[in-house]
Amino acid sequence: MAREYQAVERIEADYLIETMIDPRKAAEIMAGEQSSGTFVPVPGETPELKARSAARVDRLELVEGAVDAPSLPTTASVKPGSLRRARLTLSWPMGNLGPSLPNLLATIAGNLFELRQFTGLRIEDIRLPDPFAEAYPGPRFGIEGTRRLAGVPDRPLIGTIVKPSVGFGPEETASLVQSLCEGGIDFIKDDELQSDGPSCPFEARVRAVMRVINAHADRSGKKVMYAFNLTGELDQMRRRHDLLLAEGGTCVMASINSVGLVGMIELGRFSQLPIHAHRNGWGALTRHPLLGWSYVAWQKIWRLAGADHMHVNGLANKFSEADESVIRSARECLSPLFPGKPCLAMPVFSSGQTVRQAPGTFAALGSTDLLVTAGGGIMAHPDGPAAGVSALREAWEAAVAGVSLTDHARTHPALACALEMAS
Amino acid sequence: MAREYQAVERIEADYLIETMIDPRKAAEIMAGEQSSGTFVPVPGETPELKARSAARVDRLELVEGAVDAPSLPTTASVKPGSLRRARLTLSWPMGNLGPSLPNLLATIAGNLFELRQFTGLRIEDIRLPDPFAEAYPGPRFGIEGTRRLAGVPDRPLIGTIVKPSVGFGPEETASLVQSLCEGGIDFIKDDELQSDGPSCPFEARVRAVMRVINAHADRSGKKVMYAFNLTGELDQMRRRHDLLLAEGGTCVMASINSVGLVGMIELGRFSQLPIHAHRNGWGALTRHPLLGWSYVAWQKIWRLAGADHMHVNGLANKFSEADESVIRSARECLSPLFPGKPCLAMPVFSSGQTVRQAPGTFAALGSTDLLVTAGGGIMAHPDGPAAGVSALREAWEAAVAGVSLTDHARTHPALACALEMAS
Repeated sequence: MAREYQAVERIEADYLIETMIDPRKAAEIMAGEQSSGTFVPVPGETPELKARSAARVDRLELVEGAVDAPSLPTTASVKPGSLRRARLTLSWPMGNLGPSLPNLLATIAGNLFELRQFTGLRIEDIRLPDPFAEAYPGPRFGIEGTRRLAGVPDRPLIGTIVKPSVGFGPEETASLVQSLCEGGIDFIKDDELQSDGPSCPFEARVRAVMRVINAHADRSGKKVMYAFNLTGELDQMRRRHDLLLAEGGTCVMASINSVGLVGMIELGRFSQLPIHAHRNGWGALTRHPLLGWSYVAWQKIWRLAGADHMHVNGLANKFSEADESVIRSARECLSPLFPGKPCLAMPVFSSGQTVRQAPGTFAALGSTDLLVTAGGGIMAHPDGPAAGVSALREAWEAAVAGVSLTDHARTHPALACALEMAS
Repeated sequence: MAREYQAVERIEADYLIETMIDPRKAAEIMAGEQSSGTFVPVPGETPELKARSAARVDRLELVEGAVDAPSLPTTASVKPGSLRRARLTLSWPMGNLGPSLPNLLATIAGNLFELRQFTGLRIEDIRLPDPFAEAYPGPRFGIEGTRRLAGVPDRPLIGTIVKPSVGFGPEETASLVQSLCEGGIDFIKDDELQSDGPSCPFEARVRAVMRVINAHADRSGKKVMYAFNLTGELDQMRRRHDLLLAEGGTCVMASINSVGLVGMIELGRFSQLPIHAHRNGWGALTRHPLLGWSYVAWQKIWRLAGADHMHVNGLANKFSEADESVIRSARECLSPLFPGKPCLAMPVFSSGQTVRQAPGTFAALGSTDLLVTAGGGIMAHPDGPAAGVSALREAWEAAVAGVSLTDHARTHPALACALEMAS
């Protein structure tokens, strides 16, 4: 069900705009701002030069419907009835920037969001030519590598988050991990608030937690994947990665919006472990529907830089995102980026996840290539975390088999109990 | 006129929120989300642990006035008349994260923008305890170092941008730089679209441009400061910096939102040249007044990481930003960050700047510690770029002397001609 990748020669970006001027003129202003334009003609700006380097408007479609009020404030004057929305595609020659992800951001986004002729401007999608695929590693582990390291060949990985987010020291964290390992969990992650704070230093946490995980693996043959949050400066991330590798860890986590693109590219190049990419901070870039970025566009950049797991929120989440947006994001993570280099990342479903979301998630996604992290959904099970993990696995078994949760619960008491709790 | 810095013990952040629930309850949800909270109670979450690590609501003030419609969409139900706005301050103990800028972002922003109980959430300001001042370099050159390298002891630095943004090769760029040097310019910058594209490779551009700048310096004693855009991956930025240093360059430019925080921290640590920080992409984070970041908060992070020059847009700009916001940003760049470490950065005024904005900018800022870059405002002067530079200098002389531009123009023909053109 994944979309087929369309090969492109030029860098392409799709936008949704809202403007008080002729949308075609608005598109040309965007193209000018993002290539050879300036606000007055300057010496040396020849037609040949423009033809070589100019951005091009490749598509423009008006969006039906009246726009009553500007979606974003502007200092430009807005005549009543003048606002219109349109979808358009701009493209650029590779010669302007080469296959550079950091410079791609300046080209496709740059100053566009600030232009006064626009009361809405959002990047909906991007398509990159093959030289980008050659220049960047993409996910080194992706879905297959993650499944191999976690020892989970087919079903979704069932995971949880260490809570409370902050406050636990290394030994308290390890003790929680112990009970989760015994409960049969596949995956555990640090909270994004926990990296190397004085109250729970990274090194001490890794040593304490990996002692528990390694001992459990020795006993049971199952090595639980723990995504340690190594977010920090470059040297810190390197040292933390190396320590974790030496201790037998199998996953690093980084907050992509805190680390930024150049830091994530470095991490992608040196990491010998899957990278669990946390998107906290993302809301600022996407929450307004006529500003910023759609995740469809945004996640491509981080996958190409090397992210193996990408957060997509979850159905019926505690945040403001609608379910259809969550599913669109997850499907994108499972759609190939380039013909010869798919760069698939495992979508991570989180936020208020319980057994209840399994059927809807599977029905919409049609895949079990995902990681679901439930906090309270596992930890607060009346019969303890082990029952919480069992219930979530059972819910997914039911979803994949096309059996209702209620029916499946008749023969699965952990699921029955979880259903009662979540209702 | 700069604000005095207030020493703080805990990390503090100020927010503007809009919510359909009791604002005090909303503030507590924020504090919970960003410290020890989860959506159900979990084992191990003791009162002592909460007291040690919890974020605290330090201030809450309701904002007067009715809110008719939600500023941002949400999946939560919004009863008519329920929306209210408030300003509040949260604080965190240093023990949660330590003095780490990347982890600061997860703590003060994190998932907050996505919470469904909020139809508006914006970070208005932040205050950091002294350990942050010890952990980061801040601007190595700042205002004094920039003035020394540019040979401009007091008045504003007059600068311009190489236009067209893309399309010029190295020799065409150098030829333009030649005429600008002869015109008496202080500062030139690459466009943010131009870094190391195949049509104008960084190394060839540096060699061609520095040959012109060095020869001009040898003849005239004035070395024009050129901010070469080295935005790229870490190794690329290092190599480009080293090349530029060897060629006698005096400034590097980087797009902060393309490079990201970890990359900029690295650049701040290794750069032996002032860092001209370009904020393109910023609009996505700030354009909606009830979402994202105010520049007052945002610029502090990049100054601490090492930015010497910070873009602030300009009065009567071609973008959507109001003048008062521009001035607030510029004043912040000139306000100390810490009692013992001011970290002042030179504000960069740009976007549609001509002689006309000089009096208003000086009146509002009360300082000449700034850099003004005019594109067409210099290049399109009827008597050529030299006259364009003279006119801008003369406009600032008039502004500082409290003489009207019209009066000053009577004895200054370049200004007279520029005024006519800009009218």
